[in-house]
Amino acid sequence: MASFYCLTFLTDYGLEDGFVAACHGVGFQIAPKTRIIDITHLVPPGDIRRGAAVLAQAVPYLPAAVHLAVVDPGVGTSRRAVAIAAGGSVFVGPDNGLLSWAVAAAGGATEVVSLTNRALWLTTTVSATFHGRDIFMPVAAHLAAGTPLAAAGDTIDVASLVTLPNQESHVIGGSAQAEVVTVDRFGNAQLSVTAADAAHAGIVPGAAVIVAWSGNERRVRFATTFGEVPPGELVSYPDSAGFVAIAVNGGNAAQRLELRPGTRVTLTVMT
Amino acid sequence: MASFYCLTFLTDYGLEDGFVAACHGVGFQIAPKTRIIDITHLVPPGDIRRGAAVLAQAVPYLPAAVHLAVVDPGVGTSRRAVAIAAGGSVFVGPDNGLLSWAVAAAGGATEVVSLTNRALWLTTTVSATFHGRDIFMPVAAHLAAGTPLAAAGDTIDVASLVTLPNQESHVIGGSAQAEVVTVDRFGNAQLSVTAADAAHAGIVPGAAVIVAWSGNERRVRFATTFGEVPPGELVSYPDSAGFVAIAVNGGNAAQRLELRPGTRVTLTVMT
Amino acid sequence: MASFYCLTFLTDYGLEDGFVAACHGVGFQIAPKTRIIDITHLVPPGDIRRGAAVLAQAVPYLPAAVHLAVVDPGVGTSRRAVAIAAGGSVFVGPDNGLLSWAVAAAGGATEVVSLTNRALWLTTTVSATFHGRDIFMPVAAHLAAGTPLAAAGDTIDVASLVTLPNQESHVIGGSAQAEVVTVDRFGNAQLSVTAADAAHAGIVPGAAVIVAWSGNERRVRFATTFGEVPPGELVSYPDSAGFVAIAVNGGNAAQRLELRPGTRVTLTVMT
Repeated sequence: MASFYCLTFLTDYGLEDGFVAACHGVGFQIAPKTRIIDITHLVPPGDIRRGAAVLAQAVPYLPAAVHLAVVDPGVGTSRRAVAIAAGGSVFVGPDNGLLSWAVAAAGGATEVVSLTNRALWLTTTVSATFHGRDIFMPVAAHLAAGTPLAAAGDTIDVASLVTLPNQESHVIGGSAQAEVVTVDRFGNAQLSVTAADAAHAGIVPGAAVIVAWSGNERRVRFATTFGEVPPGELVSYPDSAGFVAIAVNGGNAAQRLELRPGTRVTLTVMT
Repeated sequence: MASFYCLTFLTDYGLEDGFVAACHGVGFQIAPKTRIIDITHLVPPGDIRRGAAVLAQAVPYLPAAVHLAVVDPGVGTSRRAVAIAAGGSVFVGPDNGLLSWAVAAAGGATEVVSLTNRALWLTTTVSATFHGRDIFMPVAAHLAAGTPLAAAGDTIDVASLVTLPNQESHVIGGSAQAEVVTVDRFGNAQLSVTAADAAHAGIVPGAAVIVAWSGNERRVRFATTFGEVPPGELVSYPDSAGFVAIAVNGGNAAQRLELRPGTRVTLTVMT
Repeated sequence: MASFYCLTFLTDYGLEDGFVAACHGVGFQIAPKTRIIDITHLVPPGDIRRGAAVLAQAVPYLPAAVHLAVVDPGVGTSRRAVAIAAGGSVFVGPDNGLLSWAVAAAGGATEVVSLTNRALWLTTTVSATFHGRDIFMPVAAHLAAGTPLAAAGDTIDVASLVTLPNQESHVIGGSAQAEVVTVDRFGNAQLSVTAADAAHAGIVPGAAVIVAWSGNERRVRFATTFGEVPPGELVSYPDSAGFVAIAVNGGNAAQRLELRPGTRVTLTVMT
């Protein structure tokens, strides 16, 4: 396997402690020519689904790389540590579903190893609680520096990987049933239905739709961008990752409508 | 135009999502040898004035670079996207005033183009809501990699650029009227009057001044540094960007005095 | 002195302002080939002990480097600015104890200079309140680029350095008395007693211990990792820095037990 110029890094470690820097330091010493791109370290602690969603939506815009992700509430238990070849990149992390959406988006796993080769770990004695520093980063950095995937451990069956269930989404007639996947910093709520699927229900730019959630409903314009509605008004639109989202032009939709990840939302086109 | 070793990056995208990383990934693939320096991504959502102030105060300490800034509440509307040559650097962002104070601080615009050349965009089809990833970063990275400014689009008139009004500041006799520009992490409130202008009113280190705001007033020492007053006491001083600021030695002045960006403050020298 | 490929950077500057970026810009212009690894910039404002703890625990995993740390409530007073050679690295920052634990962990200071050579400062006139940008970073970058330590200023006596007192920790019989050093993002509370010392009191994996603090006590398992107790249960364990810590499997121990830095905690092994 050729070396990678780039290693990307996503965790729930936060930015207040030195955890991320310790990992950077370990990676730098193994692969000094590799550039590290931090995706985010502010995944809510232990929130595997959120980490999976952020990773899957960032990866299409990142170079071929070793993509290292660690949201690992099961650290120190028997959950496996894995490296997965997919779409010209290698994904490294715990086998708890965190990587699954990104791997799928990259075209699916073609080769998987369990990270059992301790020669690539930081030391032969590792901490029981900080595998990011002691196992995942050193292995990822060795892979970035050109170590072949197969050298990282035992090859395992692709079908044995833990995968997260996809979010629910149904498009029937003139209606799309979905759930909130993520809420971004602006309070825009991304739904689990793609704009392409919603179009089959007639939910296309220019349409008026009824948004229903938690016993409430509101009429909104389906537009291509916020600016098509007056400031302060609700709008639904195809977001930059290709999903249907709900926003307030210049405001915070999630706060105003009390939308959270998992909230079920139905959009129905008005006829 | 020569290439730049450095691209700086300021947004209101936050650090919880993968937005910044997607932009880094796009930039890296176009200009792999260019180093990206993140200025901040925590500008309050849509707060153009705050973004403009942070950018203008950081740029004098940054190398000649492509300075990319995106605080863009009008994304998807008819606001222009621009690249501005000024002082040996190029400033890229929306034409909403965000760049104007930094461009002025760099000596003023010498050439401006509207980013109409879609060949430099990420793809010929771009999202309507994430121009940072799809237009601004790819164009900025191409410029960093050596593409001439004129190739980015149509040359437009410097005078047509949107500029933010300067903050109000008047120095009359022994008094300086100003407003709070920014409050930093320490709670230090930066005013819109420069230390040089304040000196004309006799507000110089060692002077005692009356600080008046929102119906309150307090006597404070104008000093060169916090440590000249006892812990817990108010102090006014020339800050590291050359403006008059108000602080509490070891405390948070903005919280204690309820100062916010826009609060009008008058300093009067005691005689 | 040889040059360093790496400069690490820890402050309490926060990420909202352009302070960190201004320092990066200054460093880049002096030492363009040096990579900067940010440790954290979210040390609580002025919290020297917290900064010292984060630095000391990160440094063992960082490459030989110039380690620049600035938590500097005494900026502008007579406190000295220093550069300290220790363990193949150079530590730069204010002489207020911030560097002392990391220097000790690196094997102790072998040479110290006071940063009195203004030729290495940003300009000969510096701001009174932003020595990170105007003194510390330029000197650190010059040292990273190969300037000998002795050129940074006057050699001073190692014994004259300000050092922080170590946290209290006593191991007597079957009991360890300690205090909370830090609380991380996950709410895990790190105590001031090392796992090696605790073992002398019989506090070893598999033991049951009584944790007592602030008039409360709770029986917990001393384990090697969270997963050895059921979700939601308290656990004590040797953390990734080699100290005894208290956690909740899948939860936030510091919030639940109201543990804060400085809280005194006693662990007693059950017999």
